[in-house]
Amino acid sequence: MKKESEMLASRELKKENTVIELDGARIGGKDIVVMAGPCAVESEEQIIETAKAVKNAGAKILRGGVFKPRTSPYSFQGLGKEGLEHLKKAKEETGLAVVTEVMDPKTVELVSKYCDILQIGSRNMHNFSLLKEASRANKPILLKRGMSATLNELINSAEHILSEGNSQVILCERGIRTFENYTRNTLDLSAVPALKELTHLPIIVDPSHGTGRASLVSSMSKAAIAAGADGLIVEVHPQPEQALSDGQQSLNAEEFELLIKDIKKIAESVGRAF
Amino acid sequence: MKKESEMLASRELKKENTVIELDGARIGGKDIVVMAGPCAVESEEQIIETAKAVKNAGAKILRGGVFKPRTSPYSFQGLGKEGLEHLKKAKEETGLAVVTEVMDPKTVELVSKYCDILQIGSRNMHNFSLLKEASRANKPILLKRGMSATLNELINSAEHILSEGNSQVILCERGIRTFENYTRNTLDLSAVPALKELTHLPIIVDPSHGTGRASLVSSMSKAAIAAGADGLIVEVHPQPEQALSDGQQSLNAEEFELLIKDIKKIAESVGRAF
Amino acid sequence: MKKESEMLASRELKKENTVIELDGARIGGKDIVVMAGPCAVESEEQIIETAKAVKNAGAKILRGGVFKPRTSPYSFQGLGKEGLEHLKKAKEETGLAVVTEVMDPKTVELVSKYCDILQIGSRNMHNFSLLKEASRANKPILLKRGMSATLNELINSAEHILSEGNSQVILCERGIRTFENYTRNTLDLSAVPALKELTHLPIIVDPSHGTGRASLVSSMSKAAIAAGADGLIVEVHPQPEQALSDGQQSLNAEEFELLIKDIKKIAESVGRAF
Amino acid sequence: MKKESEMLASRELKKENTVIELDGARIGGKDIVVMAGPCAVESEEQIIETAKAVKNAGAKILRGGVFKPRTSPYSFQGLGKEGLEHLKKAKEETGLAVVTEVMDPKTVELVSKYCDILQIGSRNMHNFSLLKEASRANKPILLKRGMSATLNELINSAEHILSEGNSQVILCERGIRTFENYTRNTLDLSAVPALKELTHLPIIVDPSHGTGRASLVSSMSKAAIAAGADGLIVEVHPQPEQALSDGQQSLNAEEFELLIKDIKKIAESVGRAF
Repeated sequence: MKKESEMLASRELKKENTVIELDGARIGGKDIVVMAGPCAVESEEQIIETAKAVKNAGAKILRGGVFKPRTSPYSFQGLGKEGLEHLKKAKEETGLAVVTEVMDPKTVELVSKYCDILQIGSRNMHNFSLLKEASRANKPILLKRGMSATLNELINSAEHILSEGNSQVILCERGIRTFENYTRNTLDLSAVPALKELTHLPIIVDPSHGTGRASLVSSMSKAAIAAGADGLIVEVHPQPEQALSDGQQSLNAEEFELLIKDIKKIAESVGRAF
Repeated sequence: MKKESEMLASRELKKENTVIELDGARIGGKDIVVMAGPCAVESEEQIIETAKAVKNAGAKILRGGVFKPRTSPYSFQGLGKEGLEHLKKAKEETGLAVVTEVMDPKTVELVSKYCDILQIGSRNMHNFSLLKEASRANKPILLKRGMSATLNELINSAEHILSEGNSQVILCERGIRTFENYTRNTLDLSAVPALKELTHLPIIVDPSHGTGRASLVSSMSKAAIAAGADGLIVEVHPQPEQALSDGQQSLNAEEFELLIKDIKKIAESVGRAF
Repeated sequence: MKKESEMLASRELKKENTVIELDGARIGGKDIVVMAGPCAVESEEQIIETAKAVKNAGAKILRGGVFKPRTSPYSFQGLGKEGLEHLKKAKEETGLAVVTEVMDPKTVELVSKYCDILQIGSRNMHNFSLLKEASRANKPILLKRGMSATLNELINSAEHILSEGNSQVILCERGIRTFENYTRNTLDLSAVPALKELTHLPIIVDPSHGTGRASLVSSMSKAAIAAGADGLIVEVHPQPEQALSDGQQSLNAEEFELLIKDIKKIAESVGRAF
Repeated sequence: MKKESEMLASRELKKENTVIELDGARIGGKDIVVMAGPCAVESEEQIIETAKAVKNAGAKILRGGVFKPRTSPYSFQGLGKEGLEHLKKAKEETGLAVVTEVMDPKTVELVSKYCDILQIGSRNMHNFSLLKEASRANKPILLKRGMSATLNELINSAEHILSEGNSQVILCERGIRTFENYTRNTLDLSAVPALKELTHLPIIVDPSHGTGRASLVSSMSKAAIAAGADGLIVEVHPQPEQALSDGQQSLNAEEFELLIKDIKKIAESVGRAF
């Protein structure tokens, strides 16, 4: 086994930050990058309307789930391929790059045709077959921390991707599971500066899943940027109260616009651009 | 969404225990069933030697990993297909049924040809694509609780399998992640009677991963049976100190024999047979 | 600072088990000792009725709280001195030794006059002023594990008592706080054999607080004895549904009698007496 | 029992923020207030040197432990009364208000004579006898969240103080205990906006205990202010590498000066003053 300092993800091995370049966004550089959109793509209209709103406010990347990992087999599982088509339309209309979750090694190829970034969800951080398959698609990968994964394990999961030859990994802190129940998870913002010490990969924060409450998203977004995060991934829905999933943690378009304004000030105060 | 009481896994829906029948073992009935073997299949000799020893002591099912989910990509990943051949030999030599982990929907078919029970590991409890694919193989499935999964989530993962038409699910408590660090995990034995209240599915306990220390395996095995578990899955290795993985939590053949003797007494005292 | 092996509580320093002798009970020896009674002393009648019932069933020690640590200042805080008088009556009527919680260094002297064992509750495991004061009362001390305390910290809290010259400490596992919410806490039974490795002090288990559900108490009591515990502390109330606190986790007299019968069989099967 | 909305600590009951006034500091108002100093008072020279340095940099309150709650009875337990004298000297030399921990109801009166704010440490958040006694000293109380306490429990502990007639409570988030081990605790910054929703009391953050690593203190301090905290409590030691306790998480004077500069920018960007 390799020593930690010899791992490809290690800051000791590679001192300078990894920067991931996309159409219209550089993740891990001076700029703060915001990804936004609904938890789930529900219709063409919904995703296009959201895409326009978040672009308008300053988001660079559109998020939207089409394959949804759901605790219950009877919950809405996402629109699947149809949802990918909707995302494509939204991309064409707005020019935004698109990120969506991939859950199955068998659909990596399909999803790769439609999306700019492949998301590995929290529940799949330890799904090594999926990590390997996704790595080979040669797209940037957004790797979410498992809900009870240590930072060391998160970095090792990134290493599973890097060691397959794909160096474009974006880490994402999205809250860990604790005894606290006012929030859905406990957003571990110390993960941001800690990961910056340990690895050269970019780190973004998901305040929506991290808290599970729309009312806490703005404060935690500001805190994340202040802590040194390279960006955010935020749930935005035209009518949160009607969302098919995670409505209680989604911002509407107006709230998202305010969020971006607040973020800009914090970004400046820590020497980052927006 | 269905109510909990309407779920296929629900004890309310189906009062009587589900019993899973295999060659030479009934899981979920009056008998305590012990599965035993090495963490990883390392060679034909190793697995055959272990199989004979555990059969001799009273185990009914042989365990052995050939696809190993490992935190680091540089750790031993298992022998893969070669390991399946070794398991087959061990099965032929001893007549023991075989359980092994499947990690990738793409290898479900292959693994199903060699094994009697498919194991879904802790890291994959939320890997719904794998659950669906494994379900269709129409073999009993050993479903391990995720390391920070609630009982409700474990039952919902079982429901993902049941709702695909496969009713043969064995639940496994294998320790949850807490702040305690003397043990590798915290074995949650209250999960046993709690799951018995909530579901009709059989429940076994893994004291090896649950504690991470060979010295605690016997005590926790006894406690598991006393708590009402239907069986155990125990790591046994001919030379634990030379094991390629998890040696510190493996019993040797002699220790396993003693364990079985102790288990028998407890089984009787709670009205179970061995 | 001392090395762990040099601590007074250390099994390395003192190989043989510490046995604590009381009128009619030896804790830490071959016998399983059961302490039982209501969460809170509510009236003279209630505690005497309970004392008779639990004695009849086989309990050796009566428990009952008179100073209750309560999350809310508006909850019932216990009867205080009046409750101590009731406990005294119950002791006179039944001959049972009595254990009750002490919360304040200032009341240690008072409580010591009425009780045979001083209980330090979970919330006070790290209350070092109280540990020191209680130690000096020269009574056996029942030290409950803090709800997020490691085993190492529990042993160190015992050491605070031992190093003041009082060697009569009984450790108690009562569940730790995790993300699981079906149970009130997660009863960590691996703490029992682990503590037996680390220390010579007796260890008992509280399945009532450990699970928070009366329906799980019997299974977990059996498991605790199978795991090697020296005894149990169980909540029993004449009418659990009318209890002023913790009714949902209390057994009634009949259920307690059945519990004792079950425990006896397990005790025998692991070579213990009752 | 009272409803949550009827509790004295409740934001519903009292809409406007509670502001605590001290010589030279208003906690809970527009200003960010920083408390700083060593984990333990070690000598008159050490505390005076530190006091001057932190005052110079912008701290308004001096912290320093003289009664130290230590896991092991063999660790340095603090200078006790002698330490209080040193704190008094430091206060006279610099004019800084002083906060120190009180551990025992019996020493509340003594400590109150020397200090401006009484600290209830994390281990004593559930020590209700101490809360009551401290409340009566009629000094502001800094109440630290227990290491596995929910926000609801923290507010209830505050209520124990408020219901005794003392309304001057400052809440402090200092990290909770999780499975993560790169950091000493997991600093739960979502507690800040969550507590702001639930209560009108001021909230400060302890990034030193919250992370256990000096290298993370600055990032987490900035994040805390961005999240809406009213202040910070930071460990500063003239020579962290020689500190009698917690050296690895202490800043030296120079690092503290830089921290304050960074904090000022963040404070401005969220509309707070320094």
